[in-house]
Amino acid sequence: MIDFYDTKTSSVNQAAGQRISLAHGGGGQLTDELVASCVLPRLDNCVLSQLLDSAVFRGAERLALTIDSYVVKPLKFPGGDIGRLAICGTVNDLAVCGATPLAIALSLILTEGLERRVLEEVMDSLAAAALEARVSIVTGDTKVVGRGQGDGIYITTAGVGAAGNHKLHPDEVRPGDTLIVSGPIADHGMAVMLAREMPQVQSVLKSDVAPLNEMIERLLDRVPGVVFLRDPTRGGLSGVVADLANRTGLHITLEEQEIPIRPETWHAADMLGVDPLDVANEGKVLAVVRPDAAEAALAALRQDAHGKDARIIGQVNDERDGVCELHTKMGGRRVLQKPYGEQLPRIC
Amino acid sequence: MIDFYDTKTSSVNQAAGQRISLAHGGGGQLTDELVASCVLPRLDNCVLSQLLDSAVFRGAERLALTIDSYVVKPLKFPGGDIGRLAICGTVNDLAVCGATPLAIALSLILTEGLERRVLEEVMDSLAAAALEARVSIVTGDTKVVGRGQGDGIYITTAGVGAAGNHKLHPDEVRPGDTLIVSGPIADHGMAVMLAREMPQVQSVLKSDVAPLNEMIERLLDRVPGVVFLRDPTRGGLSGVVADLANRTGLHITLEEQEIPIRPETWHAADMLGVDPLDVANEGKVLAVVRPDAAEAALAALRQDAHGKDARIIGQVNDERDGVCELHTKMGGRRVLQKPYGEQLPRIC
Repeated sequence: MIDFYDTKTSSVNQAAGQRISLAHGGGGQLTDELVASCVLPRLDNCVLSQLLDSAVFRGAERLALTIDSYVVKPLKFPGGDIGRLAICGTVNDLAVCGATPLAIALSLILTEGLERRVLEEVMDSLAAAALEARVSIVTGDTKVVGRGQGDGIYITTAGVGAAGNHKLHPDEVRPGDTLIVSGPIADHGMAVMLAREMPQVQSVLKSDVAPLNEMIERLLDRVPGVVFLRDPTRGGLSGVVADLANRTGLHITLEEQEIPIRPETWHAADMLGVDPLDVANEGKVLAVVRPDAAEAALAALRQDAHGKDARIIGQVNDERDGVCELHTKMGGRRVLQKPYGEQLPRIC
Repeated sequence: MIDFYDTKTSSVNQAAGQRISLAHGGGGQLTDELVASCVLPRLDNCVLSQLLDSAVFRGAERLALTIDSYVVKPLKFPGGDIGRLAICGTVNDLAVCGATPLAIALSLILTEGLERRVLEEVMDSLAAAALEARVSIVTGDTKVVGRGQGDGIYITTAGVGAAGNHKLHPDEVRPGDTLIVSGPIADHGMAVMLAREMPQVQSVLKSDVAPLNEMIERLLDRVPGVVFLRDPTRGGLSGVVADLANRTGLHITLEEQEIPIRPETWHAADMLGVDPLDVANEGKVLAVVRPDAAEAALAALRQDAHGKDARIIGQVNDERDGVCELHTKMGGRRVLQKPYGEQLPRIC
């Protein structure tokens, strides 16, 4: 028996190696070893460590549930990586619905041949973002696919939250409401595009990827007049505002000169020929608030590092045409539409 | 303006086409069109149709949360497909923890070039399985990756459930407890392996993929002596029982002649040279029950179509060696270990 066990042990150690193999996805000893060495130590908590088929934890009367898959390329980009993105994106989707995160579930699809070191770095970053957002990963899954059937790491995170009492819904939006954005737009999309399309360019541009739950909780606690929140990810600010105009049937105007954009982001958008309004953000929120709550909302957002450059950028009008119109810096007018596809695939 | 709109509309229709393009993953008009035409009509319910960042629904005091990614190859196999698998796997992970499903979140990673027809068939099957399991898909996400970076469809499903009051945990397992399996093992894994490795072979073998929540709810309602449940997926029955022996530190014996296996499954395992005990199931449950509850548990399971061939297959002994031992049909003894990797990757 001892020989038999020894052989097994040493072969586990060999195959554990420095790269992920298909066998790491088999649900056997190798999967256990991978999860125990690369994943669990970084995410440790008393619910996760039970390792049961479902994690069990304290609930709430009304729940919010969200899920997103992350396939961003490259895995690491200026200002973040796929691990940080997977936490922030899911936490922000809960937060903009007025929900407080209760738990996160994490599923990995790894590609055979992936370096263990890369997985470890991503898990470090994911764990740091979870700590920053004050959320726990309570359950997970790991699969491995062959070369040419994946691209390193795809992450899917699902978040469950306690729904708050705030009515945040497009149906709440009324003529006269004010649109606020929490800071400079397009940093995430432009940072990823630049890293991918022009890796030779040196730029100070960084993704804005950040968890916004603390900032949004403060906003909702302090300001009663917030009626709708959304994080302008894929599709950018255009996508979110055009969607809102379409759903409410109201006419929304945005003032181009009020929309904050960093010079380096402008520069990158110019080089790559894209409209920053169409570009993904991962650490910004668009808030629609009653006009008399606008100043209080700005003040609440600006108290947070992620909202210090918050600005009023537009308003909801009483024409019932469902159109979003941009008043340009040059004094012109342009209809904003939800982007058709995406300037660059795999931005998140 | 009319020309502009017309052009857009006709180009949406052209690009919508018969195959998935990278632009379908951009979060713009094309993503909306894909989701609205292929996904939403099949899953329609009043929570999902809100299309907000998080779905909000009634909660529970204690929650169960689970997540799994499905990368099975081929997408369709005798007895099921990746859509049915994604619902059943997640529902079963909730059920074996004694939880009643409240909602499912669904995330798709599609590969550029995928035929729309294939996606539609998978979504049909997923919707039918959700109906069978009486669960709703309340939120979702869709991403697209390039050719050579995926393999048609990867699905991740997260399930949130109301945790029951049943204590189902390895720590509850005691010497004397009885092991029951709800029916013939290894059908899922062997059906997928046969479809992939020997597509020329004609066999009646089918995957057992099925939602077990109704059967498990009945078992738990009627039989107070159930102490642990697990669905033997990747790693098979060996994996689950070896894990349980290891976690409890108790000696578990299985009687090979009592373990139900269909003749066609034996035959396929024999041809492919694998041990059916190591092979994945997707519609079976292993139940550990107090000895005086065994007959009642068998009776409760057998009332359900998915449990009609339930059998007592082993017991927990009082030796404290953490070993799982198989008493073979020939009168021999063999230590069962959790499989090392997997006979065939991408079984689920």
